[in-house]
Amino acid sequence: MTTNIDYSLYLVTDRGLTHGRDLIQLVMEAVQGGVTMVQIREKSCTSGEFFSTARELKKKLTTLGVPLLINDRADIALATGADGVHIGQKDVPYQAVRELLGPGKIIGISINTYDQLKVAAMSDVDYLSLSPVFPTPTKTDTSEPFGIEGLKKARSMTDKPLITIGGINRDNLSDVMATGMNGVAVVSAVCSAESPAEAAGDLIRIIRNNKL
Amino acid sequence: MTTNIDYSLYLVTDRGLTHGRDLIQLVMEAVQGGVTMVQIREKSCTSGEFFSTARELKKKLTTLGVPLLINDRADIALATGADGVHIGQKDVPYQAVRELLGPGKIIGISINTYDQLKVAAMSDVDYLSLSPVFPTPTKTDTSEPFGIEGLKKARSMTDKPLITIGGINRDNLSDVMATGMNGVAVVSAVCSAESPAEAAGDLIRIIRNNKL
Repeated sequence: MTTNIDYSLYLVTDRGLTHGRDLIQLVMEAVQGGVTMVQIREKSCTSGEFFSTARELKKKLTTLGVPLLINDRADIALATGADGVHIGQKDVPYQAVRELLGPGKIIGISINTYDQLKVAAMSDVDYLSLSPVFPTPTKTDTSEPFGIEGLKKARSMTDKPLITIGGINRDNLSDVMATGMNGVAVVSAVCSAESPAEAAGDLIRIIRNNKL
Repeated sequence: MTTNIDYSLYLVTDRGLTHGRDLIQLVMEAVQGGVTMVQIREKSCTSGEFFSTARELKKKLTTLGVPLLINDRADIALATGADGVHIGQKDVPYQAVRELLGPGKIIGISINTYDQLKVAAMSDVDYLSLSPVFPTPTKTDTSEPFGIEGLKKARSMTDKPLITIGGINRDNLSDVMATGMNGVAVVSAVCSAESPAEAAGDLIRIIRNNKL
């Protein structure tokens, strides 16, 4: 269990959405703009490329005090000294990942249903990511969106840090934050933005202004 | 560095080649037939399914004293107590995997060129897998086949355990073993066989009869 993490604006990478721009440079621009936490999600590149990207980003982000999480792969997290792992419901089970990482690392889990939320709320997982909040084209295997009312319901069910992901943009962000979320995760809103720094800056201002 | 491993007949799994049969049962039949070592290679299933398959196979294979290796993922190897990891040239680098696994586990590496062989021969990797020996439809990104003469050349370059993979069958197996290989790895020759046990039995007899 790790405390004092700023979940406000959590960037999840997607190499396919960067319009050919260098991923590491894009992430660093986004962090300069206001991203408080980064997760590398790689579903198509080689494991070697995943590892080298993570290692380089970890070095750069450590200097700035921004946590780096690795999607799914505890081995790459351990080998690069990353701050934790984000797992989905179909990844290696939480307890096995915790045993590999030890108590000092951050583990987050994607939550698609209230039943999954109940289970995760009783574990010592560090944060829950409600997914998706709105319909989104980024992931194809998503469940029924939570919606704003669903976020409120989820918030009432646990005191753990909650973030949410899926279709969040400047227009709906204040409503999302008003439900009591600790932060939001974004993919395309930053990865595909013409200026990732400006996009992150716009989002973090709204988040800070609307955080409960 | 691990010693006393029987590399003779090394089964590499491919869920796509089992004609819909249960992978674990198929592997166990193949082991009963003569397979001496198993590697789970999963390129399409979820990480959770990869983990649960590995965990179940590890339990069953431990009883029989047959080593289980995991393709690419040290986290799944560690979490399931598997005996080691097999990496390709584009996976997490060898040294990082060794640091994660520690000295007691087996690490094997795919070798596609003589330059790669020279590098790996000087490391403390446990075995080298020359790939491919013949043209093969199983992997799509393969390099120029080594061929029988290439195996002999490779054998002259290192004392490390050498296996080879790619297009091996009953007809060419004695020639392969006559080059001084410690064993061969097979995928479709066993995974796609009507009787994996009989296929493995046929192969291991030829291997034992032709091992230098």
